[in-house]
Amino acid sequence: MAAQGAYGRLEAIFGKSSILGDALAMLQWDMAAMMPEGGAEARADQMALLQTLAHETVTAPEIPDLLVRAEGEVGDSWEKANLHEMRRQWVHAAAVPADLVEALAKAESTCEMVWRKARAEADFAQVLPSLRTVLALVRETGQAKAEALGVGIYDALLDQYEPDGRSAEIDVVFADLESFLPAFIAQALEAQARRPAPRLPSGPFATESQRRLGHEVMAALGFDFQRGRLDTSLHPFCGGTPDDTRITTRYDEADFTSALMGVIHETGHALYEFGLPGGRWRHQPVGRARGMQMHESQSLIMEMQACRSPEFWAWAAPRLAAAFGGKGDEWSADNLYRLGLKVERGFIRVDADEVTYPAHVIIRYRLEKALVEGRMELSDLPAAWNDGYARLLGITPPDDRLGCLQDIHWFGGSWGYFPTYTLGAMTAAQLFDAATQADGNILPGIGRGDFAPLRGWLGANVHAKGSSLSTRELLVQATGRPLDAKVFEAHLRRRYLA
Amino acid sequence: MAAQGAYGRLEAIFGKSSILGDALAMLQWDMAAMMPEGGAEARADQMALLQTLAHETVTAPEIPDLLVRAEGEVGDSWEKANLHEMRRQWVHAAAVPADLVEALAKAESTCEMVWRKARAEADFAQVLPSLRTVLALVRETGQAKAEALGVGIYDALLDQYEPDGRSAEIDVVFADLESFLPAFIAQALEAQARRPAPRLPSGPFATESQRRLGHEVMAALGFDFQRGRLDTSLHPFCGGTPDDTRITTRYDEADFTSALMGVIHETGHALYEFGLPGGRWRHQPVGRARGMQMHESQSLIMEMQACRSPEFWAWAAPRLAAAFGGKGDEWSADNLYRLGLKVERGFIRVDADEVTYPAHVIIRYRLEKALVEGRMELSDLPAAWNDGYARLLGITPPDDRLGCLQDIHWFGGSWGYFPTYTLGAMTAAQLFDAATQADGNILPGIGRGDFAPLRGWLGANVHAKGSSLSTRELLVQATGRPLDAKVFEAHLRRRYLA
Repeated sequence: MAAQGAYGRLEAIFGKSSILGDALAMLQWDMAAMMPEGGAEARADQMALLQTLAHETVTAPEIPDLLVRAEGEVGDSWEKANLHEMRRQWVHAAAVPADLVEALAKAESTCEMVWRKARAEADFAQVLPSLRTVLALVRETGQAKAEALGVGIYDALLDQYEPDGRSAEIDVVFADLESFLPAFIAQALEAQARRPAPRLPSGPFATESQRRLGHEVMAALGFDFQRGRLDTSLHPFCGGTPDDTRITTRYDEADFTSALMGVIHETGHALYEFGLPGGRWRHQPVGRARGMQMHESQSLIMEMQACRSPEFWAWAAPRLAAAFGGKGDEWSADNLYRLGLKVERGFIRVDADEVTYPAHVIIRYRLEKALVEGRMELSDLPAAWNDGYARLLGITPPDDRLGCLQDIHWFGGSWGYFPTYTLGAMTAAQLFDAATQADGNILPGIGRGDFAPLRGWLGANVHAKGSSLSTRELLVQATGRPLDAKVFEAHLRRRYLA
Repeated sequence: MAAQGAYGRLEAIFGKSSILGDALAMLQWDMAAMMPEGGAEARADQMALLQTLAHETVTAPEIPDLLVRAEGEVGDSWEKANLHEMRRQWVHAAAVPADLVEALAKAESTCEMVWRKARAEADFAQVLPSLRTVLALVRETGQAKAEALGVGIYDALLDQYEPDGRSAEIDVVFADLESFLPAFIAQALEAQARRPAPRLPSGPFATESQRRLGHEVMAALGFDFQRGRLDTSLHPFCGGTPDDTRITTRYDEADFTSALMGVIHETGHALYEFGLPGGRWRHQPVGRARGMQMHESQSLIMEMQACRSPEFWAWAAPRLAAAFGGKGDEWSADNLYRLGLKVERGFIRVDADEVTYPAHVIIRYRLEKALVEGRMELSDLPAAWNDGYARLLGITPPDDRLGCLQDIHWFGGSWGYFPTYTLGAMTAAQLFDAATQADGNILPGIGRGDFAPLRGWLGANVHAKGSSLSTRELLVQATGRPLDAKVFEAHLRRRYLA
């Protein structure tokens, strides 16, 4: 039954924008997983046009008036939440003039190209002018959104990825993390040094065997192959739509763990999409995933919580041995379990383990906040980056390729994104803790390759909620408290010091 | 340099519609080649929305006035041709009221579903009511377009697939065909019976080997893998865009010829797309392929002319033997050549050889024309169908599954499409004849797997012309005369009676 009045009109408008977004998501997946190089220019035209049409849809002149009139019409809490999210989408879309959007998009794509070469040559100076342009336009964008949202400039950028995310709260949890992390890393490394090193199974591991194993594990986790696929791309991701979720991975024949844990990670994202509310809410803002913090928590609850447990390896170890024809002790559950928990102080974020990862993120968060708020100069970035690594991880990158040039985010215009990685990891620990306490069948289930109990809890407490609650409300309802670094700390202590 | 004035505005409008069409083409390809079942409903929503947006674009209220004003602005012949094709697109889009378009789309999809069951059960009566609804709405559509175009109702429908195609001309060439075809089929069968039968290589032929062979042959024909892909789908087709052309096939492990000749056929379509004019014309109506007759000619010139020649098999035979590890006489060029020329009176069009195929088409053309023009009742279709087969092919289908229920076209709303198959086959023969006469290197090139000379001639005389000429003008410029059944007849006589 379609809603009437101003609110009903808004549902129609945002529904249309969602369908355009779905089409865009499929074109994006194809670009990464299927498209031959020669299609790039035409694809850019297609995506730019659909983006423009979607933007025009949610910034139609009638919308401000509809948003006001609809306030008096919405009845239940879901309609109210939907209207709230509509307003947020409209603010983000309408706050920034079209010429600024275009200028930023151009600057991002120029800077990204320069960055590729600068990174390869470890030469920050090369990309500095382009990055200055990007940052200036990002700050202009952030300022416009900050005024419209009534928040600070950094929070306005953060809000694009983590709705209602506020740096004041992040500062608190990251300070909690930082208060124990440097010492804890040292303790974990000492504990690790005292144990015999796990043995690495030796390859090669045929891509086809890895793909079959990936499908087997995806099926156990609950991936619905009637509503999704696994393919290959240079940068693994979860794309598509809730009805047709496309995850990708890449295969390294020398090391099966990267694809395996990557597939598990993306399956966590996919399960969130599958579990979102359907029906009337399928194409409404309230029906979408809550934000990047919660989305990352769903991938990490699978990759870092469920599938690095001894229970998981008890189930998975014989399957891995069978998949690769592996024999010997290195294929034992215990060895594979310990292999998955190796801690190492490294320079590269994407290669980091769960113990050191937050340090990488905290460094980036502090730097991007200072840069966005104008408290720091871009020319000081390399030195400040290296200081952060020395202080939090006790290591100093030998060059900027292993330092501030490693991540695409800033060069591609994603400022305010980094904290969601670690907020997601902490959220995952807190949700898994609550889930396993609420349902004693979850861990034994995982030990049999039965993820239904875990999926059931996540489905009811996270997935089916869509965006009807804020991240904070959702977490309080599901776990009894807001995000708490203590839970993450306790998880790390149990796992690495026990 | 963008065009100015009313004409310039039209280029912008039709350019936008073309980009939407490209996005649609990619979603369509994905639906057939990649999409899991569960994505069907969401995909239908995406495609319906993009179709609506494209329709709104080319029926904007300003267009009739722009078309008139632009008449005084267009300078060169390409701009003139472009404006002519814009008007055609606008007439087809604007002539039919939106509620009729919607009613027909619904009736088609209902009828298609009923047809699948009716065909399986060989029960025409079951689908007759739905087909009546489709035909009534098709006739209403045809009448509206006929008035707008100033042509008869059948020609109005034909014009959707073959711009400027006129049944008066088709009647002449089909009468020419019919005057020799029944006797010729008998002669070809007699000649075939006098020769020792070719031997069938025995399988199974692994899908992976077939796929590799397909890629090898595509590369030889000139398929640009930087601008396209080969994948698998239930119904093979050529889709995507000129920059990113996606062809599909299906594999039968018992018979490699269906996939091989299918891949060659779709590659012919793809080469046409690759060769269309780019730059300013890439997204303009004048830059598109001329019509279904010319498009089919480009697939058949590869499948039926170039790649059923003795020269082709001299090159291909050792490659096939190597692909499948084949040994023995059945892998000789001569045997494979003769295997590809088997003539048989059959009931099923899609399985027909090039000698009997026109008979299948002539039967359908006469029937659909009579039905559209109201000179025949749908309830008389099965009997009339069987009469046609008796008269033209000397065989009578045992049931309607092998008779008038075999093709999806009418049930899916495609009326006026059938003649383009045989017009395409005749055009292919005429173009190949002219090409090989103009360039003595074409056939020897094919004998070395070098299709560059053929591709060069087709590129210059067909592909690069886009829609700047009518099909008739294009054929006259390329071959010195309009479509002439005598050339096709001569080709058949040379190949089957020599």
